[in-house]
Amino acid sequence: MAHINEDFLKLPGAYLFSEIAQKVKTFKAEHPEADVISLGIGDVTQPLVPAVVDALHRAADELADGATFRGYGPERGYDFLRRAIVENDFQARGINISEDEVFVNDGAKSDTGNFQELLGKDVRIAVTDPIYPVYIDANVMGGRTGVLGSNGHWSHVVYLPCVAENGFVPELPHARERVDVIYLCYPNNPTGTTLSRKELQRWVHYALEHDALIFYDAAYEAYIQNEDIPHSIYEVEGARRCSVEFRSFSKTAGFTGVRCGYTVVPRTVTATTKMGDRITLNPLWNRRQSTKFNGTSYLSQRAAEAIYTPEGKEQIRQTIRYYMENARLMRDALGDMGFHVDGGTDAPYLWVRTPEGCTSWGFFDEMLQRAQVVCTPGVGFGPAGEGFVRLTAFGRHEATREALKRIQTQIQI
Amino acid sequence: MAHINEDFLKLPGAYLFSEIAQKVKTFKAEHPEADVISLGIGDVTQPLVPAVVDALHRAADELADGATFRGYGPERGYDFLRRAIVENDFQARGINISEDEVFVNDGAKSDTGNFQELLGKDVRIAVTDPIYPVYIDANVMGGRTGVLGSNGHWSHVVYLPCVAENGFVPELPHARERVDVIYLCYPNNPTGTTLSRKELQRWVHYALEHDALIFYDAAYEAYIQNEDIPHSIYEVEGARRCSVEFRSFSKTAGFTGVRCGYTVVPRTVTATTKMGDRITLNPLWNRRQSTKFNGTSYLSQRAAEAIYTPEGKEQIRQTIRYYMENARLMRDALGDMGFHVDGGTDAPYLWVRTPEGCTSWGFFDEMLQRAQVVCTPGVGFGPAGEGFVRLTAFGRHEATREALKRIQTQIQI
Repeated sequence: MAHINEDFLKLPGAYLFSEIAQKVKTFKAEHPEADVISLGIGDVTQPLVPAVVDALHRAADELADGATFRGYGPERGYDFLRRAIVENDFQARGINISEDEVFVNDGAKSDTGNFQELLGKDVRIAVTDPIYPVYIDANVMGGRTGVLGSNGHWSHVVYLPCVAENGFVPELPHARERVDVIYLCYPNNPTGTTLSRKELQRWVHYALEHDALIFYDAAYEAYIQNEDIPHSIYEVEGARRCSVEFRSFSKTAGFTGVRCGYTVVPRTVTATTKMGDRITLNPLWNRRQSTKFNGTSYLSQRAAEAIYTPEGKEQIRQTIRYYMENARLMRDALGDMGFHVDGGTDAPYLWVRTPEGCTSWGFFDEMLQRAQVVCTPGVGFGPAGEGFVRLTAFGRHEATREALKRIQTQIQI
Repeated sequence: MAHINEDFLKLPGAYLFSEIAQKVKTFKAEHPEADVISLGIGDVTQPLVPAVVDALHRAADELADGATFRGYGPERGYDFLRRAIVENDFQARGINISEDEVFVNDGAKSDTGNFQELLGKDVRIAVTDPIYPVYIDANVMGGRTGVLGSNGHWSHVVYLPCVAENGFVPELPHARERVDVIYLCYPNNPTGTTLSRKELQRWVHYALEHDALIFYDAAYEAYIQNEDIPHSIYEVEGARRCSVEFRSFSKTAGFTGVRCGYTVVPRTVTATTKMGDRITLNPLWNRRQSTKFNGTSYLSQRAAEAIYTPEGKEQIRQTIRYYMENARLMRDALGDMGFHVDGGTDAPYLWVRTPEGCTSWGFFDEMLQRAQVVCTPGVGFGPAGEGFVRLTAFGRHEATREALKRIQTQIQI
């Protein structure tokens, strides 16, 4: 008789975004005439840039010809892409990362979900609250989180609240609280806030001092405008010894359907056996990937390479400017209405306080029913997200303007 | 202090094919003039067929246009592809599989590796010996295999030898041996042998009788020529209640670089909690996939859809005929030399007995050094593979013929 992994049964029924999709589907079925605008799920709307499209066509032609056909690629990604990544995302910023520390993947969700496999069951994770649900859910499946309390917190997880009172900057764990792995995501999903270099340095110091690991999700780094905000955790002294960084082309270049990202595992990052032996994570991750992954599509890798060309860089910068213009419009309009808005200056997300007395899901429903605008309930990202919703700047200009108009006319604050 | 998952440390250093690649690389560095022909790793050489290439170009153009751009797709794959799969691979054979039982992925390696996550640690797996290493290695990482004995067998794994004496058809586990999950791969990698409908029925009966699951890897079904051999385990009575099937477009349509496959999880397949409650695996797998996977590339899904069109079907049939012609040539030539050869009639693999007194790795070295031909040492697939090598029919005709000529002139049997 095959037993299931009962940790799966601890999970709440649906993944947040599946739940939202279901609610929207139901609303549309009941209101077939409604023109629903989604500012909910963080999905892009602008087409792939020409440099990327050209690369896709070229790659398709290569695979059409026996002389240039390629089958299995290296599980960790082609040299051409890892070289472009290292040169442009790291060396150009004075960061020392080598090609064999880069693992190309099919998007950050896979690796932020899978990386915990390298760790023991007894590892105690810390997460900000609110947080991207994948970090916790993957650890629930991995049996590390204990039980879910009525307060929405898992008993074995350390929560670092990010609330208005601390400017959405998490405080270090209490001195007596053991933490082995800290998940940080900056620019932050969902709050759209950032950490300064000094604040990030504080976390790296903490990790080094407590022999903890930082899993740093920098999927939104391309949206940073302020020069004081680090794009990579490796801009900070000591991070190479304690940090794994997850990057994605999804939001950088509209690859949510193309699927490509990468993970950096410096050769200097270690964890220990129970006997205290130091084990380097890089070869362990390589073993994991070469066993359970066969590399991401060759076309996607050529497409990713193209965003590092001069044309590609300029083209994706334009798209990011387009979205950041949405963010500005949204900040202005909602601010003028009296909403309290955070984020949206160095990130594609706005974190909007709901009207007094209105819950996250309550406001989600009101926005959907009255304005036909989809947002994401903040509480879906954790209990500290209650009383907020997340709006994304990834809409089309016209749709974003129309959504704002409806909010201005239909929603009471 | 973060502890690692020490189960990773139990694994032999390198994944088999990485190890072979390293040996070939070393040989080439030492013999830069050598023209090495690979009949080793099961990678295809023929280009993508025109129907697929057209679909890739069309998909790239769609993503280039704001009006047709698509971002995140459904984690379980687009409806258009799941519909084509169900109609062509199942309903056309009279098999009752519905669209919500199909999960599109980025290749069978990921899902055959990841599916064990749904199961408890105490689950006892059975594998054929020899076997595709991913099934075992993934369970080693999952902590289910015990310790590796000097005989090459893991202490908590039940091995089902496939040897010349039983015609490479595994026998059912002993009556007193508990087995919860059986991994079967047919047409078989590495032996190239198949199971008849009657033999497969025996396994399904066994699974139903013992409340075990069958994880059935049918990645090579497109190579079946004999009409008596089932393409899907669901052709067999009762399989819907106990079997998960893994399919891949890698070998069917040359997608080793494009990355697309799928997994079938019928709604009738269950496992139990320790308290004996029945849990349906389909929603559990959906939860796993929607948490740790974001769907495979839109381009790859459109490419896969194209192989189900009338032109696509005919074109991929031609490619398969091309490879099977290689298989015939190889069987004939090696047989004429006096080699004992199995497989290669309904599968792209030939399982060749090494000359008397020569080990798998010994013969690998001899083939590489003397004939500059790469094969895969049988023992890399398990102890019962000792004394065999695997050859693949995926080469180009000319290269395959040249390899056979060299073997005929340079290798002594």
